[in-house]
Amino acid sequence: MNFYTRKWVKPEDLNAHGSLFGGSLLSWIDEEAAIYAIIQLGTNRCVTKYMSEINFISSAKQGDILELGIKAIHFGTTSLTLTCEARNKITKKSILTIDKMVFVSVDENGKPWAHGKTEITYTDERLRE
Amino acid sequence: MNFYTRKWVKPEDLNAHGSLFGGSLLSWIDEEAAIYAIIQLGTNRCVTKYMSEINFISSAKQGDILELGIKAIHFGTTSLTLTCEARNKITKKSILTIDKMVFVSVDENGKPWAHGKTEITYTDERLRE
Amino acid sequence: MNFYTRKWVKPEDLNAHGSLFGGSLLSWIDEEAAIYAIIQLGTNRCVTKYMSEINFISSAKQGDILELGIKAIHFGTTSLTLTCEARNKITKKSILTIDKMVFVSVDENGKPWAHGKTEITYTDERLRE
Amino acid sequence: MNFYTRKWVKPEDLNAHGSLFGGSLLSWIDEEAAIYAIIQLGTNRCVTKYMSEINFISSAKQGDILELGIKAIHFGTTSLTLTCEARNKITKKSILTIDKMVFVSVDENGKPWAHGKTEITYTDERLRE
Amino acid sequence: MNFYTRKWVKPEDLNAHGSLFGGSLLSWIDEEAAIYAIIQLGTNRCVTKYMSEINFISSAKQGDILELGIKAIHFGTTSLTLTCEARNKITKKSILTIDKMVFVSVDENGKPWAHGKTEITYTDERLRE
Amino acid sequence: MNFYTRKWVKPEDLNAHGSLFGGSLLSWIDEEAAIYAIIQLGTNRCVTKYMSEINFISSAKQGDILELGIKAIHFGTTSLTLTCEARNKITKKSILTIDKMVFVSVDENGKPWAHGKTEITYTDERLRE
Repeated sequence: MNFYTRKWVKPEDLNAHGSLFGGSLLSWIDEEAAIYAIIQLGTNRCVTKYMSEINFISSAKQGDILELGIKAIHFGTTSLTLTCEARNKITKKSILTIDKMVFVSVDENGKPWAHGKTEITYTDERLRE
Repeated sequence: MNFYTRKWVKPEDLNAHGSLFGGSLLSWIDEEAAIYAIIQLGTNRCVTKYMSEINFISSAKQGDILELGIKAIHFGTTSLTLTCEARNKITKKSILTIDKMVFVSVDENGKPWAHGKTEITYTDERLRE
Repeated sequence: MNFYTRKWVKPEDLNAHGSLFGGSLLSWIDEEAAIYAIIQLGTNRCVTKYMSEINFISSAKQGDILELGIKAIHFGTTSLTLTCEARNKITKKSILTIDKMVFVSVDENGKPWAHGKTEITYTDERLRE
Repeated sequence: MNFYTRKWVKPEDLNAHGSLFGGSLLSWIDEEAAIYAIIQLGTNRCVTKYMSEINFISSAKQGDILELGIKAIHFGTTSLTLTCEARNKITKKSILTIDKMVFVSVDENGKPWAHGKTEITYTDERLRE
Repeated sequence: MNFYTRKWVKPEDLNAHGSLFGGSLLSWIDEEAAIYAIIQLGTNRCVTKYMSEINFISSAKQGDILELGIKAIHFGTTSLTLTCEARNKITKKSILTIDKMVFVSVDENGKPWAHGKTEITYTDERLRE
Repeated sequence: MNFYTRKWVKPEDLNAHGSLFGGSLLSWIDEEAAIYAIIQLGTNRCVTKYMSEINFISSAKQGDILELGIKAIHFGTTSLTLTCEARNKITKKSILTIDKMVFVSVDENGKPWAHGKTEITYTDERLRE
């Protein structure tokens, strides 16, 4: 799994007792996964259809830097299944994992649409720092 | 299940193809469930620990009114298990369901804390309009 | 008056001296009242036209849970008059009251439109917890 | 009355039928008035206590530029009464007026505090463009 | 240079170590400058094209009141060059300066469009308080 | 330069004529650069001190996916100089470049603090998709 998007936990992301609000984290994950699905399927008409169970393994506090990792694990005819993880960028400690998130590509009327993709498109290969 | 909080789908809640952004919906649900847990457990030190699988049954568009329903289904020693649903307020069509969301009450150091509650506290009983 | 929507006072809702920002509270009330008006009048073309005087009775701080109550008190030809209150969900202490909020239903050109409603539509009747 | 702060109506400020959300407007006014009160009273411990009736005279749409005007009309022992207006910057058409907004200065415990001010402090005098 | 819009630094504007987030400040400046350009050029089709170097002279903390100043310094055929400053409203201490911000007026297709303006339009002249 | 964080242009990021609001873009860049500086300098007490001139090369519209690239180009005693670019993830077309962004590490009192770092710390090396 590769980790791209990074988030800096700011005051607006905290719940009332000062730790990262679960809703913010879910919102970040859903956006990152949607972006990944759009890139792989070549259409921005992708809708979240299903998430498998979610484990909130550890928490995060103000000032922490998180990174979000996504990986495609199955290409269906109209769907794409991803797996994802959010972890602390510095300590690598896992914060949340979702085994399966299913996106479906839809047409202009919102009906499932065959995307024609069968494998991950590698867009680049680079050293990271 | 009772439905309390209502949301009006506004432009800021839409994804790039004009339907309700899944991340906004998850964020709304998580906040509503946390509020419910706080009320039942009598402490605002409640953290989301687990969500069972999530089905995105139908979508919503700008101007739709949603209502969020939560119900306690199990009281553990330090945990509380809820079930929830988001549906269209007018049509009653289900938008998303989550069978189980588990919250854990924690102490000042973030360790699980026995909340001592064993059943739903009814706070009022009223006619709705 | 029935209370539906609940809000959890989070860091982003605070003013610079740590209590609930009046603007956030007014924004919550206006949205809740608009939703109520839309449900009663059966159209989402409802605009806020007038508010009677507003008393900020007590304040709220981070972590507090608020509930918003709205009730229709008069159906005009094109208008609907509501009364509303925001209070602390736990202590029931009143935070803000507005005796009258007037919404007007408008047509596509923004002109007042006769909504044809004369009384509250009860949508359900349920036990609350 | 002098007009300082300007707002550009953006998609996130619209309600579900495409005009300026009343709640956003009230939130802008409350913040601007609080800033004005802080400047006049020389303390940022100012809380909104009362608003007289509010008339929503006309609406605004995406892309409109608004300007907010505030003026002190009475200095009490612990209070400051302001009058305010929001209008279209280009057409000068009034959008909303509030005859009286009362702020109270408070001490560290939230109790009313005598601010000792009796008249408007002019901070500068300049040509505007 | 005249100063109009005022901002109150709130918790949502802070970075993770409690001072004003640079990104919020840049976002405020860009909006204020765009509003100024729209007023001067008489069209809301104005896009930010260039900013000269930016010096972050001092910081701001929660509760501070800032004011934003903008002034037109050059009218090109399709462009408008502004200079701007953000400073503390009370102490007048400079927080950030940008010598040149260039906006370009564009037509419906996003192509540069001759705006026909050659000098500052004074819209009013007033005493400030 | 490596590109990590991705952004999906949503309605809330648009200005009043429907293209990406420059202020949102600057805010994204500043946060991403701050995160990069924190990782390299090993402290979250990093403040933006300077940005060289900024060219807004092309625009973006709703639904576009952007990626943000940052690279360290100079380590001073208390400072870190970065270069950055925002581009369209799919077309690779450049949207904005900033040749130099200078961050300074500060101590608890906000005074410059020698960070002791002299070169980029590579944290991982991975295949991207």
